Amino acid sequence: MGTKSKGKLVVVSGPSGAGKSTVIGHLLKRRNDISFSVSATTRAPRPGETEGESYFFLSRGEFDALASGGALLEHAEYARSFYGTPKAPVAEKLRQGRTVILDIEVQGAAQVKAAMPEAVLVFLTPPSIEELERRLRGRGTDTEEKICLRLETARREYRLAPRYDYVVINDIAEEAAAELDAIITAEKCRPADRIEFITVEE
Amino acid sequence: MGTKSKGKLVVVSGPSGAGKSTVIGHLLKRRNDISFSVSATTRAPRPGETEGESYFFLSRGEFDALASGGALLEHAEYARSFYGTPKAPVAEKLRQGRTVILDIEVQGAAQVKAAMPEAVLVFLTPPSIEELERRLRGRGTDTEEKICLRLETARREYRLAPRYDYVVINDIAEEAAAELDAIITAEKCRPADRIEFITVEE
Repeated sequence: MGTKSKGKLVVVSGPSGAGKSTVIGHLLKRRNDISFSVSATTRAPRPGETEGESYFFLSRGEFDALASGGALLEHAEYARSFYGTPKAPVAEKLRQGRTVILDIEVQGAAQVKAAMPEAVLVFLTPPSIEELERRLRGRGTDTEEKICLRLETARREYRLAPRYDYVVINDIAEEAAAELDAIITAEKCRPADRIEFITVEE
Repeated sequence: MGTKSKGKLVVVSGPSGAGKSTVIGHLLKRRNDISFSVSATTRAPRPGETEGESYFFLSRGEFDALASGGALLEHAEYARSFYGTPKAPVAEKLRQGRTVILDIEVQGAAQVKAAMPEAVLVFLTPPSIEELERRLRGRGTDTEEKICLRLETARREYRLAPRYDYVVINDIAEEAAAELDAIITAEKCRPADRIEFITVEE
């Protein structure tokens, strides 16, 4: 007893427009043992996004300096912008035993799994690709060209979904958050996390 | 869409005295998509146990006839009694898409995993082996000899716990049932169960 287990790294990924940030927002209200990892990006803020909370908004030069210095756990280009996960805050939170949640693109998720096989990968998707398209258009923030690019990328991303640990359908965001909550609870019940309860003296 | 996924087979196992039947009782109150698989046994009923609900109580001859006829998914001798899981009702419920929960001994759990690798194995344990001993004595149903036999068996069983999919600590039974509930919810989010949501036309 008393052994403090290392936190869980949970990666929420899936096509742009799946509702990752909304579902994670609901999840963060449901449990207080989770830290959200704020990504760095070179894309412009969308309405309502705030520096240091939604993202660290960086210039291309600042981003490249972090990447080349090995300070990013993963990084990827997506729809002509760059995204990356600062490594140090994630490592520190995991060391403290906290669950860390990453909201990242599919390319980045594969990099995290390669670097940290113990990471739990969750693929978030709307109930159908037609619904995904409807959501992307409903946002009203992207040009037609960007929407087509995102849908083309989405088709490639779905091909990687069978390799994920879990698939969560985001029809109603609160229900998707409840499933994500259950997945985290379940993953904290792995034998390696409870080794002190199953070790008996010979 | 519309593809009905096969149900999940969830095996709750662990040392005698861990509180398996109590925790499963709470779980069955929490969700209505689960069927409990009633085991067959040659041991005598304990106070409060009812035929066909707690167990099918069989003579040794009846039990042997089922086992030799291949009608049991698993069977094992435990503390000088025989236990087994009738195969047909489990297969039928899984075919209907229901989650089937088995309350079985550790030897039987290993047989189920060997026969059905997709089965989800949950090891249920009190917070410590001292607490296990306290609970076995508190039952007041076993002789000192039987208690010692159960504790000796428990030590062997704990050595297999690291191979289980999950470990649930039964300190407060309702909380253990909530964890088991989360494990089932999570296991229903596996990519293979949601293939129709992640398949896109080329």
